[in-house]
Amino acid sequence: MSDIYSKISKSPTGQEYKIPSKDELEQEYDTIKNSAYDFVKNKKNRKVVIVQGLGFVGSAMATVVADAKDENKEPLYFVIGVDLPTPYAYWKIGMINDGLCPVVSEDEKLRNKTYNLVKNQKNLIATASERVYGIGDVIIVDVQLDVKNKIFTGVKDIEISIEGFKKAIETIGKYMKEDALVLVETTVPPGTCKKIVKPILSKIRKERDINKPVRIAHSYERVMPGKNYFDSIKNFWRTYAGIDNESEEMAREFLSTIINTKNFPLFCLKDTTASELAKVLENSYRATNIALIYEWTLLCEQLGLNLFEITKSIRVRKGTHDNIKDPGFGVGGYCLPKDSFLAQWAASNLFSSDVVLNITMEAMNINHNMPKHTFELLKNSFNNDLERKKILICGISYLQDVADTRNSPTAMLTDLILDDNGIPIVHDPFVDYWIERPNITKVSDIFSAIKEVDAVVFAVPHSFYLNLDITKLISKMKHPITIIDAQNIISDDKAIELNKAGCHVKGVGKGHWNTILKQNHNK
Amino acid sequence: MSDIYSKISKSPTGQEYKIPSKDELEQEYDTIKNSAYDFVKNKKNRKVVIVQGLGFVGSAMATVVADAKDENKEPLYFVIGVDLPTPYAYWKIGMINDGLCPVVSEDEKLRNKTYNLVKNQKNLIATASERVYGIGDVIIVDVQLDVKNKIFTGVKDIEISIEGFKKAIETIGKYMKEDALVLVETTVPPGTCKKIVKPILSKIRKERDINKPVRIAHSYERVMPGKNYFDSIKNFWRTYAGIDNESEEMAREFLSTIINTKNFPLFCLKDTTASELAKVLENSYRATNIALIYEWTLLCEQLGLNLFEITKSIRVRKGTHDNIKDPGFGVGGYCLPKDSFLAQWAASNLFSSDVVLNITMEAMNINHNMPKHTFELLKNSFNNDLERKKILICGISYLQDVADTRNSPTAMLTDLILDDNGIPIVHDPFVDYWIERPNITKVSDIFSAIKEVDAVVFAVPHSFYLNLDITKLISKMKHPITIIDAQNIISDDKAIELNKAGCHVKGVGKGHWNTILKQNHNK
Repeated sequence: MSDIYSKISKSPTGQEYKIPSKDELEQEYDTIKNSAYDFVKNKKNRKVVIVQGLGFVGSAMATVVADAKDENKEPLYFVIGVDLPTPYAYWKIGMINDGLCPVVSEDEKLRNKTYNLVKNQKNLIATASERVYGIGDVIIVDVQLDVKNKIFTGVKDIEISIEGFKKAIETIGKYMKEDALVLVETTVPPGTCKKIVKPILSKIRKERDINKPVRIAHSYERVMPGKNYFDSIKNFWRTYAGIDNESEEMAREFLSTIINTKNFPLFCLKDTTASELAKVLENSYRATNIALIYEWTLLCEQLGLNLFEITKSIRVRKGTHDNIKDPGFGVGGYCLPKDSFLAQWAASNLFSSDVVLNITMEAMNINHNMPKHTFELLKNSFNNDLERKKILICGISYLQDVADTRNSPTAMLTDLILDDNGIPIVHDPFVDYWIERPNITKVSDIFSAIKEVDAVVFAVPHSFYLNLDITKLISKMKHPITIIDAQNIISDDKAIELNKAGCHVKGVGKGHWNTILKQNHNK
Repeated sequence: MSDIYSKISKSPTGQEYKIPSKDELEQEYDTIKNSAYDFVKNKKNRKVVIVQGLGFVGSAMATVVADAKDENKEPLYFVIGVDLPTPYAYWKIGMINDGLCPVVSEDEKLRNKTYNLVKNQKNLIATASERVYGIGDVIIVDVQLDVKNKIFTGVKDIEISIEGFKKAIETIGKYMKEDALVLVETTVPPGTCKKIVKPILSKIRKERDINKPVRIAHSYERVMPGKNYFDSIKNFWRTYAGIDNESEEMAREFLSTIINTKNFPLFCLKDTTASELAKVLENSYRATNIALIYEWTLLCEQLGLNLFEITKSIRVRKGTHDNIKDPGFGVGGYCLPKDSFLAQWAASNLFSSDVVLNITMEAMNINHNMPKHTFELLKNSFNNDLERKKILICGISYLQDVADTRNSPTAMLTDLILDDNGIPIVHDPFVDYWIERPNITKVSDIFSAIKEVDAVVFAVPHSFYLNLDITKLISKMKHPITIIDAQNIISDDKAIELNKAGCHVKGVGKGHWNTILKQNHNK
């Protein structure tokens, strides 16, 4: 890596930011410290909050905290976002200091608030200087803790990036004030606060001759990118726990000022391990219910049934059955594909427990492989030969009406098509640049693209596809093509219309199409 | 079996009913027919409804149908409940004709209505005469369809009592009017209406020279025994489907008169197989979520966590996570331990499908074996030696505040204790006579019983136990005993109180007790 290259960090949209040198960071630290002290000076209730890690959670969290106000509508916190001075990370700092959200967001509120807090209110700033941890009253840990596994092959095989996390905690320990609160928001293996964070911080503080007990709390976020990004932090339920009564009280006090606790009262758990486990259990619950429906999807396709109507009929039973999931294309995002592994890893590595979360781990495997089913429906429509077939995949992100492409199941589908010498082409009204698969051809006009392709796969239920004019789509086709609907995009009437136009139509969980399209064909 | 014995049918409460002879049944038929015709005479909208099978569903359904009224508050239906003239079944007929519910019920409404309809309104009657099927406009099938398996050992191993069900349908076919609607309410393998019921009825009707197509619909009940037994039919959501448009319309029309569709609109599925599958899927969803929490229960016990508090914190997230289940003792009742097997059986036996419902079947196995965990907690408290230990199990039924003991997990616990030469003693404020385990000693006063026992297991969260005076319980003990709480009956404070009194206290999903009781002990 050349010296010059390593001094530049490029954002996904192409904006370049110069990474500061050590000397420049020292100067930056002095400036920020002065701004922070100016801000808190003569205002007893004001505090300095550091957010460590400026990804999907940290960057939004920094904005929410900087936006918090006291009863006189005065801002409460001077917020400093911290990330690393590396080409991979520094652009997030650059963007925030430009008043921009580093995460592409459909949430105007988040975008406007971030700009205003940085540029006008001036109590939100970002830096790569580690020394700012030394001026924080509350240090929020939002660094990533990734899992390398995609599927479960055995308890001993789970690999997590705990070293990076430990290093981040060490950095905090090196600089933190003796009475600061370390609030871990990162989704961690249950037991992390007590068995990893506390020993690391206590050891370094001892080396620094700090004898006061360290204050640590855990409170997990439920951030949901999309139109309500900001509100998914501010106006949403929060669970928290402290490693001791003082930590618990400090966390409660802080969270009460940033969360709308009037409508979303805080939930206190009496053990940080419980709070850590709650996060991974709630995502495991979700993941398992998705996996459960997958096996019933296969059954309903073979039995000629419309599973979407069946799950809809069951959800009517409110209070006990309204969380049953629909069939679908696959599972993506940051949390659901990994969180369960953290629990299983913690069981064996932090507690020497022999418990195996069999159903949960099986669910992880099913969910990871789920896009293969859509691929099979596609392949079968071409007599198992996709060679040179052009397949337009509608939807790149992992979720309806958002741009987030992390672990999107569409990536697996494109890979499978490429493996079979087919040609995947993608479309997504929300995604300008597909960072995980930059080389896949991306089209912006579905009606032009339809002229050139052999098949269309609806992979994400974006409103754009739900409102798509199928009649117009048919009129633009040069010849009948294959349509695979993995997300209940196509109504029965439209399926019949496509069928009448000669198209081959298949749908995930839509076994009834076999019958109604055959009936229609026989008419 | 002596001739005299075979002519008597004894109810669980000991009441004896003489089973009528064939001649007597013929006379009975004539009488009932005349009453029915008198009832419908000159009232165009009145119909005769036959309910086949007078168990938990059929007996309550008969009352709900007989209670249905038109806009002028006039009764709509003459209802005839039918069951078999056998010692095993006839007492149900006897009880209904006495104005009594054959199923012990905490629902005063159901009891009062049944009595009033039989004795005063006189449009509800029961009989063993098969010939009454010949006068029914609607014939509701509520016969049992049992599964012999308790655990899943392979697709080919599933055995269901389909022969008894087929015979019941044949009997209907032999007598039914040509334009009657057969409404199947029994939980059946998906595909049953089209692949079993229709062929049987069509064949017999052809033999009877009836050429009109037979009308068949499926609509599954969601009956819940307990205080709202009647309303769990009348005021609850209903899904239905017909084998053709006419059947669908007849079912809709009939159900609209007996269900409170203003508050609980009917849900129409376009395929009887879909309606049949919906029922077993909704119970599989429930069963799987119970099994999922079981593996996290084991984890939380090893990690020293209170899982009840964790699930409570997750349920706060309404709309997406409020159906997550609590830990517990085990799964019972008629539906949850068997319904999933019906889907798996149908897949291979009615559709030659190779789908295996892996997660669902694994859940069945976990749930069946769940009481073994409570047994292990108990056994460990006695150094794995239960010989001559007297164990008081609080709760026999499978559900809170009901008397229903079908497939109650308490049965497995008593068996396990007996196998280990312990002495199980049971208590349940709702159960007078435990039909499945008549030889187990049953006590009625828990405070007397506590003097004689070595351990208490709380197995069912009856309000009685939740309100139990633990301080008084301690005062009645002759010596400290073991308390196993499988249902979150004992608060932390009470656990500490029991611990201070020298009792050994353990709880399912209550890993935190290990810590707080040790702390208390060290004080």
